[in-house]
Amino acid sequence: MRKPLEHIKVLDFTRVLAGPYCTMILANMGAEIIKIERPGSGDDSRDFGPFMNGQSAYFVSINRGKKSIALDLKSPKAIELVKELVKEVDIVAENFRPGTMEKLGIGYEELKKINPKLIFATMSGFGQTGPYSKRPAYDMIVQGMGGIMSITGEEGGDPVRVGTSIGDITAGMFGTIGILAALVDRDISGEGRMVDVAMLDGQLSILENAISRYTATGEVPKPLGARHPSIAPFEAYKTKDSYVIVACGNDALWEKFCKLTSREDLLAMDEFKTNPDRVKNVRKLKEYMTEIFGQKTTAEWDEYLNKNGIPCSAINTVDKLFTDPQVAARKMLVEVEQPGVGKIKIAGNPIKLSGLEEEIPKDAAPQIGEHSELILKKYLGYTDEQIAELKKENII
Amino acid sequence: MRKPLEHIKVLDFTRVLAGPYCTMILANMGAEIIKIERPGSGDDSRDFGPFMNGQSAYFVSINRGKKSIALDLKSPKAIELVKELVKEVDIVAENFRPGTMEKLGIGYEELKKINPKLIFATMSGFGQTGPYSKRPAYDMIVQGMGGIMSITGEEGGDPVRVGTSIGDITAGMFGTIGILAALVDRDISGEGRMVDVAMLDGQLSILENAISRYTATGEVPKPLGARHPSIAPFEAYKTKDSYVIVACGNDALWEKFCKLTSREDLLAMDEFKTNPDRVKNVRKLKEYMTEIFGQKTTAEWDEYLNKNGIPCSAINTVDKLFTDPQVAARKMLVEVEQPGVGKIKIAGNPIKLSGLEEEIPKDAAPQIGEHSELILKKYLGYTDEQIAELKKENII
Repeated sequence: MRKPLEHIKVLDFTRVLAGPYCTMILANMGAEIIKIERPGSGDDSRDFGPFMNGQSAYFVSINRGKKSIALDLKSPKAIELVKELVKEVDIVAENFRPGTMEKLGIGYEELKKINPKLIFATMSGFGQTGPYSKRPAYDMIVQGMGGIMSITGEEGGDPVRVGTSIGDITAGMFGTIGILAALVDRDISGEGRMVDVAMLDGQLSILENAISRYTATGEVPKPLGARHPSIAPFEAYKTKDSYVIVACGNDALWEKFCKLTSREDLLAMDEFKTNPDRVKNVRKLKEYMTEIFGQKTTAEWDEYLNKNGIPCSAINTVDKLFTDPQVAARKMLVEVEQPGVGKIKIAGNPIKLSGLEEEIPKDAAPQIGEHSELILKKYLGYTDEQIAELKKENII
Repeated sequence: MRKPLEHIKVLDFTRVLAGPYCTMILANMGAEIIKIERPGSGDDSRDFGPFMNGQSAYFVSINRGKKSIALDLKSPKAIELVKELVKEVDIVAENFRPGTMEKLGIGYEELKKINPKLIFATMSGFGQTGPYSKRPAYDMIVQGMGGIMSITGEEGGDPVRVGTSIGDITAGMFGTIGILAALVDRDISGEGRMVDVAMLDGQLSILENAISRYTATGEVPKPLGARHPSIAPFEAYKTKDSYVIVACGNDALWEKFCKLTSREDLLAMDEFKTNPDRVKNVRKLKEYMTEIFGQKTTAEWDEYLNKNGIPCSAINTVDKLFTDPQVAARKMLVEVEQPGVGKIKIAGNPIKLSGLEEEIPKDAAPQIGEHSELILKKYLGYTDEQIAELKKENII
């Protein structure tokens, strides 16, 4: 069976994380990604650790299966070349600071004249419009500004960031969704669109009940450590050796839990009768829970409660994922054979589609300009002489 | 200009968060969502607080602009009706525990016989395959199991969950991506596909550098509070009145920062010469930073540094977003007029597409079964008599 995006070609100006994460998802589903990199230095994230034999494992994990063309965008000849390539592709993706593509002469308005079917996706910190549009952005800035840091952390503790770059990553995902929706639309309308995604906008969109809580009650949501704001018991509790998360999502599970732990006495207590009661008395409840969970290890609780249908889990460190049977069964850690490095384990494709045995490209991440010749010959019919000329002029 | 998914119809069996978040994104881009709800009680999240005039603001925020048909799926007649509707739609979306749709007689294998062009998207805790497949899952369970909690929190502190249900939300987003990719593919192949998304798989996919760090170094990533693992200064610092995040992403910004704060002495220090030096001596650096930032308020720092091109931000609480000029300019908080409640502010659409003035449906969230008649008449040509019959039998 064909890969769903096998017929789609992407001219990819993106660097670092938000944009490359977007084109990685597209690559995983079969799209051809033509990654444009600065000759010599390439994508900034090639310099981000950790390194394996001098290559960035970080870069590899997000850029496997893409093709790289080295191109000095400061040269007018390179810009002409980009415009030729734009005729051949479906999508342009970029995550420069707003205004950069226009300054280079390859903004959306310019490119859609060349290819009206083009979908032009831009991912930036604050979007193409609004008063902060031109501000520099990093993931943590956006996490701080967008509210998620204000609801993440220990109760009454210092602010903490989400341990992964959720600002970049959700922008990359929303960018992907916009691109695909525009492709679906193009099959009807025959025309392309511009997709304008901002990291900050994405943060608002994932705030979930924090926004409705504030809207409905005027209460400013705060960090709650590892407990649920409106369900109890639904929290991480200390065990004999570490922690276990237990999630009694309804009264039936609470009743079952009390019976399984021989604590029918708690069932009889008015303070814990209904879920609203338990949430109201969550501190007192925690004292009992801590007493109960301290009696066994996390592994013991995990086995006992799961066997009996109470949702629970250990808090896995990252190493544990490498031996988890479910992660293995779902092929969520796969190996890339990276020339000069050997095997690198990276995250698999979370979008499982029927009819595809292996959805992820096992191809390595490219070296800077590894496919310059191939792309110029395949798409633009360049000759060896023309290519030699471009090389001599340090354009590719 | 048309909305990109205006021609797409979704039969939506989803409840609570992951699935409804997916169909909300599709609704925002114009798809018609036919939400199937249990007669009487409806989607569980109708009972989730906070409430406004007896209606769940939480439910409204995720289900605005959808149509609701009440349908008792335990009745064979309802299942026949579902099978009729399946012929009329492009997509079926569901987030039951794996096996439920099969038990109801409307699993993918059954439905694709009826409509080979159907795209069938399922979102679950652990996916349709693997040893944990049938386990119950909640967002926090998956956050614990998937590693993100082990890298979120204060250094050396207790584990904390990400303050929003990132497990559900990313599953909803990956589900949306899978659905749209299958639609793009269908325009070529003429056939539908099954999309199988697991919350746990999504967690692996967003772990970012945590996986490459462990792969490359064997080091188990830990929580780092509000600082970046490999860039410094890149952290939240205490100010005179609260915190400010400052992100000197490269040596040039560091130099600029030192000059702006008249701390050229730090520039001269060997311990802080390069970024790797500053990361190595991050504790000592923090002492100086705390001294510097304690001299002004967050608002003063925010204004001064931003004006001078140093990326920085306050840590906004959720209420601050309601008055932020960038959030307003991007229409990231919009109003829904909910009958019986009045205006409710909800998050806007983060996918901005050219040619669309207002991309988000301003329509209210439906009452249970509000559109039962409309849908049965429009899609299946049912008569008033047939509908009255179904009502008498308590099927709709």
